[in-house]
Amino acid sequence: IFKYYRSDTEKRDFVSGGAAAGVAAAFGAPVGGVLFSLEEGASFWNQSLTWRIFFGSMVSTFTLNIFLSLIKGNFGDLSNPGLLNFGRFQNTNYSWFELPIFILMGSFGGLVGALFNYLNIKLTKFRNRYVENKILNIFECLLVASTSAVIGFLLSFFVNKDCQPIGRDLVSKYPVQLFCDDGQYNAMSGLFFQTPENSLRSLFHNPLGSFNPITLGAFCVAYFFLAVWTYGLAIPGGLFIPSLLTGAAWGRLAGLGMSYFFTSLHVDPGKYALIGAASTLAGLLRMTLSLTVILTEATGDISLGLPIMFSVLAAKLTGDMFNEGIFDMHISLSGIPLLDWEPPATTEKLNIQDVMSHPVVVLKEKETVGHILHILNKTHHNGYPIVDESQASDSTHFGLLKGLILRHQLITLLKKNCFLNNDLLLKPKDFREYYPRYIDIKSIHIDDCYRNYELDLRPYMNLAPYSLTEDSNLPRVFRLFRGLGLRHLIIVDKRNNVVGIVTRVDLARYRAHVGLTNTVVTELKVTK
Amino acid sequence: IFKYYRSDTEKRDFVSGGAAAGVAAAFGAPVGGVLFSLEEGASFWNQSLTWRIFFGSMVSTFTLNIFLSLIKGNFGDLSNPGLLNFGRFQNTNYSWFELPIFILMGSFGGLVGALFNYLNIKLTKFRNRYVENKILNIFECLLVASTSAVIGFLLSFFVNKDCQPIGRDLVSKYPVQLFCDDGQYNAMSGLFFQTPENSLRSLFHNPLGSFNPITLGAFCVAYFFLAVWTYGLAIPGGLFIPSLLTGAAWGRLAGLGMSYFFTSLHVDPGKYALIGAASTLAGLLRMTLSLTVILTEATGDISLGLPIMFSVLAAKLTGDMFNEGIFDMHISLSGIPLLDWEPPATTEKLNIQDVMSHPVVVLKEKETVGHILHILNKTHHNGYPIVDESQASDSTHFGLLKGLILRHQLITLLKKNCFLNNDLLLKPKDFREYYPRYIDIKSIHIDDCYRNYELDLRPYMNLAPYSLTEDSNLPRVFRLFRGLGLRHLIIVDKRNNVVGIVTRVDLARYRAHVGLTNTVVTELKVTK
Repeated sequence: IFKYYRSDTEKRDFVSGGAAAGVAAAFGAPVGGVLFSLEEGASFWNQSLTWRIFFGSMVSTFTLNIFLSLIKGNFGDLSNPGLLNFGRFQNTNYSWFELPIFILMGSFGGLVGALFNYLNIKLTKFRNRYVENKILNIFECLLVASTSAVIGFLLSFFVNKDCQPIGRDLVSKYPVQLFCDDGQYNAMSGLFFQTPENSLRSLFHNPLGSFNPITLGAFCVAYFFLAVWTYGLAIPGGLFIPSLLTGAAWGRLAGLGMSYFFTSLHVDPGKYALIGAASTLAGLLRMTLSLTVILTEATGDISLGLPIMFSVLAAKLTGDMFNEGIFDMHISLSGIPLLDWEPPATTEKLNIQDVMSHPVVVLKEKETVGHILHILNKTHHNGYPIVDESQASDSTHFGLLKGLILRHQLITLLKKNCFLNNDLLLKPKDFREYYPRYIDIKSIHIDDCYRNYELDLRPYMNLAPYSLTEDSNLPRVFRLFRGLGLRHLIIVDKRNNVVGIVTRVDLARYRAHVGLTNTVVTELKVTK
Repeated sequence: IFKYYRSDTEKRDFVSGGAAAGVAAAFGAPVGGVLFSLEEGASFWNQSLTWRIFFGSMVSTFTLNIFLSLIKGNFGDLSNPGLLNFGRFQNTNYSWFELPIFILMGSFGGLVGALFNYLNIKLTKFRNRYVENKILNIFECLLVASTSAVIGFLLSFFVNKDCQPIGRDLVSKYPVQLFCDDGQYNAMSGLFFQTPENSLRSLFHNPLGSFNPITLGAFCVAYFFLAVWTYGLAIPGGLFIPSLLTGAAWGRLAGLGMSYFFTSLHVDPGKYALIGAASTLAGLLRMTLSLTVILTEATGDISLGLPIMFSVLAAKLTGDMFNEGIFDMHISLSGIPLLDWEPPATTEKLNIQDVMSHPVVVLKEKETVGHILHILNKTHHNGYPIVDESQASDSTHFGLLKGLILRHQLITLLKKNCFLNNDLLLKPKDFREYYPRYIDIKSIHIDDCYRNYELDLRPYMNLAPYSLTEDSNLPRVFRLFRGLGLRHLIIVDKRNNVVGIVTRVDLARYRAHVGLTNTVVTELKVTK
């Protein structure tokens, strides 16, 4: 069953769809979810993929809403937003002179994000080196949890006893009293110990005066460092909520400053909290279109779309001067050979010969079972060029290119004992049978008496694998990999003799980051 | 100046940006504009292109809002939407049992759209054949204009005198009295003779009873056929408004039906008008994500996002059973070799040899000026493979592939008299100088005495042009063209000898439309 879906392409599409549906449900943002998935994951803009993902997101939002309406007791009311609901902003007006302020806030968010990414990557490197075994992992998690709790209590008690009369907090029904007199609640511990969704909504919607500036400042700094520490722990945890909360705190602080200095303006600090949250998130992730849509959908009102856009773009542009987005940095740190969007600028002078692997392990059109077994056991390549070795075969030229056969094809051919009868042709579905957990070569045992049987590879090989001549420069190779989603590319000389092979890993090693003043080309360490 | 922008890629990006900015300003939908441009135009999802287009759309919306606020007299109020404003819906609630109705309406919109596309394409073919000269064009425009006016008057007077008391129309300050008593206005002529924006808003927002069902039905049918006739006239005119109006009319009619049969529900016909408008537009264009976002942004409220999504998707799925979107059909009718997203299914059995052009016009590494001039005058190809003809050159093999040189490079070389001194190398910027209006070969006159001078093409040729072996099948060629945006691909045999060349036009000829019951492969007639 589901044979149609047994391919890498389909797997990728399903991953995209899942990511989109998740974001759609979390923020009640079906369009934003699709854009998030495309902006972060896709190389191609594919109409049919787009509408399928879109459909998935819609169904996800719809299902969530049905269940939410059941829980809330009014079945069929589908106007619930997602799980994380920002609440509706009462006052969505803004004046043109506030836009430059929003842009400034965006830039600041970019700085905050760049700092977050820098610190978190340093920490992750440290963690990769020293916190390796599972017990240490658990210990670290416990340490983070207890530190967070202790800091929350200490701040609530010592730094600033921000007691507010009950009723000022419009969001929580039961605010936290902690250390405060009866009839009051502690704003600082409210931020720390409520659900993050409630804290966020308090920051967005509570009236002027419901947070002391010192509370906001202390919370924002403490939460920022705790978030840096938490992201990358051996637990499933996100980035969205911590960065939104940090941003909302300093954004509200900025709003308080505005209302203090320009008393006549009647500034709503909640709006500034939203802009701060958007800027910080964009500073971390460096996405523009999708974040704007997600945040706009989460607030349920598009009037604030333009300010969000301006601040998100400012955050991206500012942050990009210092480093990359947090996801990109983590991807390159974990050694996944993901190609950049554009060929790294400095690779233009590199020749294909500097990058390609050689000598190449090649096979003939007809090979003995013994040789194939030997090759499969000795090497772990994904594909083997098939050549006519009678032609120009020496230490740098490996014969005329005839085709390409994949490792899993060879293993399947051996497994099915095809060498016994070369006329018995396997069908494509026979090869698909073991997808995606192809058989390991170790598990195949073939009797020694068959070692000299010949296997005819011609019916199975790819007759026209993509190849390039050795004169090509690296950006050209790069574009071919990126454009076609290749995994390996055979390099030939002018006479179509195999001289090397370039894999995605060879290529992804060369990454460049164009910074403010300098360009760094780093060689990626790729996980095996 | 602006040398950096002198390339086809940049030109394409600017076109995308312009389209996005236009939609952004028209509907006040910056995000929708970006998506429209990407969904209709882009092959790649490119992060940097996305945020640049996004920035452009934002600036466009912002500038428009500044000017609108000036015109309306309250400078700095940026909460104006775009030029076409749908107005705010007062009542945006809907119940779960309305969703299936919205989906049904979406399917009906898909049918309407498919009929529109079918009729319009028939008409366009007729028009291409018989309405060729400019006078006929003008005459047809006049005919359409007068017919539209006459039909409007006739319907207002004869079919149905739908007189409503003034004040019922919430949108227009000065409704059309035409044929009605004092204190009344004519709803039918209001639909026809107000600005379309006002008619649309009347259909969306006027209370129950302000339109007679017969008015709506007659208007919808008449307007549909007028719109079919109008689109494709020799005037700049759009599709959005007519299809939105037609859809809003039958949608409102459906809403009236609902309120008639289910009196207890208090159905708001305006909401149904919106769904009808969305379905019809989606039925014509077959876009999903971008239309949803544009319409949501134009209504200024995301509560109706989910119903819009469902109807838009239903419209696309229904319409796709019959034909393609109107833009795609017009593109293929006008013979522009635009490649589909996926290789046409039925091309799998076609071999590359069936498609490629041969014999190929090739050049040697050093050619005489006379021969180059002869070739350039005789042929109009865009690129010429450079070969070593001493190798295996016969009627089907044209020598060993060495490189590729472009037509405009050859012309520039001749223009600059490079044959006088082959050591004087031109720089890339010399070739870019004439972009995008390259010199015509006709305008180059070279004295006969230079005809035997030799031009060394080696410094300029592309050393590693993309090539494929002749065994490749068509889908593979297709993916190479689509993935890399190629214009020509050289076909070689196993020994790297040139045997043919495939151009984008060769490939675009094979288009397939998978219909409900049958699959049609058509050969596109390409404009020269």
